[in-house]
Amino acid sequence: MIIDGKEMARKEYEKLKEEIASLSKKPNLTAVLVWNNPSSLRYIAQKKKWAQEIGIDFQLIQFEETVKQEEIIAILTKLNNDEKVNGIIVQLPLPCHIDTNAVINNISPIKDVDGFTAVNMWKVVLGDESGLAPCTPSWVIHICKSIWVDLEWKNVTIIGRSNIVGKPLINMCINAWATVTCCNSKTKNLKNHTKNADIIVLATGKPWLLTKEMIQKEAVIIDVGFTVIDGKIYGDACFQEILENGNPITPVPWGVGALTVVYLMKNTLKAFYLQNKVVWII
Amino acid sequence: MIIDGKEMARKEYEKLKEEIASLSKKPNLTAVLVWNNPSSLRYIAQKKKWAQEIGIDFQLIQFEETVKQEEIIAILTKLNNDEKVNGIIVQLPLPCHIDTNAVINNISPIKDVDGFTAVNMWKVVLGDESGLAPCTPSWVIHICKSIWVDLEWKNVTIIGRSNIVGKPLINMCINAWATVTCCNSKTKNLKNHTKNADIIVLATGKPWLLTKEMIQKEAVIIDVGFTVIDGKIYGDACFQEILENGNPITPVPWGVGALTVVYLMKNTLKAFYLQNKVVWII
Repeated sequence: MIIDGKEMARKEYEKLKEEIASLSKKPNLTAVLVWNNPSSLRYIAQKKKWAQEIGIDFQLIQFEETVKQEEIIAILTKLNNDEKVNGIIVQLPLPCHIDTNAVINNISPIKDVDGFTAVNMWKVVLGDESGLAPCTPSWVIHICKSIWVDLEWKNVTIIGRSNIVGKPLINMCINAWATVTCCNSKTKNLKNHTKNADIIVLATGKPWLLTKEMIQKEAVIIDVGFTVIDGKIYGDACFQEILENGNPITPVPWGVGALTVVYLMKNTLKAFYLQNKVVWII
Repeated sequence: MIIDGKEMARKEYEKLKEEIASLSKKPNLTAVLVWNNPSSLRYIAQKKKWAQEIGIDFQLIQFEETVKQEEIIAILTKLNNDEKVNGIIVQLPLPCHIDTNAVINNISPIKDVDGFTAVNMWKVVLGDESGLAPCTPSWVIHICKSIWVDLEWKNVTIIGRSNIVGKPLINMCINAWATVTCCNSKTKNLKNHTKNADIIVLATGKPWLLTKEMIQKEAVIIDVGFTVIDGKIYGDACFQEILENGNPITPVPWGVGALTVVYLMKNTLKAFYLQNKVVWII
């Protein structure tokens, strides 16, 4: 069974659009772009498109690649204090002369809709849902819950340990009472850690890493991998054979990656509510 | 084999004592105590004893149990700005009318020698060693490294998911390239997750949870559990049978618990160096 991420995302966008239409003013999402590489431009265009589609004001602030770190921080301080701005993102990666973590931590945690600041990561670890959690892990949890209702009692194996996907996801699964295993490229005998898993999340960028021999019949496969070879996009799983094996699996593309923008929009609305002191369960 | 935590701690205290003796001024550790329960008083006495033993100035600030949160925060602000103070701890638990997380996050991260603030937890997740990491997980990693040299390629199973031990430890093991599994009270068939582990860390407070049938011959057992029954102290492992099985195991008491104070002292010295802008690898 193919897990229909597109349909899940469509439903969420509809709910958001309806909710935003009922507000007395539009939430605002402001993106800061420093490096005009094609991927960053594509991501920004996608975020702009969806924001506008559902009724969020989108503002883009662009810098030359030679910009000094202090200039970015000065703009962030201004945006933090601007009550018309509800969500702030800094499009990554930044050029090498910029200290990414230092820049990110200058975003006010209640406007940090990417969920990358220290306070928001700390809240993710503690399971404090008053914060803004990172988008891709939030979307993965959303998919899991759509299928299993609940992660309690489940064995979840996560392959990959990036700061943006693997690590926050592990902490979120732990807080949801799952039994979680985190594997990496140095894991001995990966199959030992996948064969009893109820849910396997792949986030390595290594195509064909997971085969049908490594999984149990009912396992749900969520593939966050994304690799381009000769113009074709691959995830980390052997998609076709796992699909034929009968396992629920997310396709690549259009399973996880592009759809995490839903959570950027959800976070922007949550940030709007936090700033307007409305209690809201996302 | 009993893992001799006491001897490991003794060596560390000696190194610290020697290093502190070579400094031009003594580092200072200040403890804030609000609730005079017997456990808190005992912990404070232990910290004071070791600080003085190795040459760290120890200062205690005591409040009545009815103190207002703002008064504690006001003192923390004063201590943050006092350059004679290098390390600050707030003895937990705090009385119910106080928001513990709000208080803790008013400690300056470079004086937060318990490693409980948002910035330090974020650095633990990211694997950024410039921060101050929590003491018990640091001591567990210290024991592991003393035995295995390195956690790479190793399977580590952690049972327990507290904010002070389990969660930071999981993140630290992930950053050390271990394959880590985190179990909790809702884990199905715990043995499935312990039988192939190279290292098992117990932090549940459930005596006799781990038996020799659940582990492989070479597994190292680190027991952070601590339960008092009829005046006798128990860890989470069936100590005697696991010891007779030939596995290296930490005793309870005197394996992990009390000895984590070593890392409080190491952190105080690291904080002293951070504030004096000396680069130091702990």
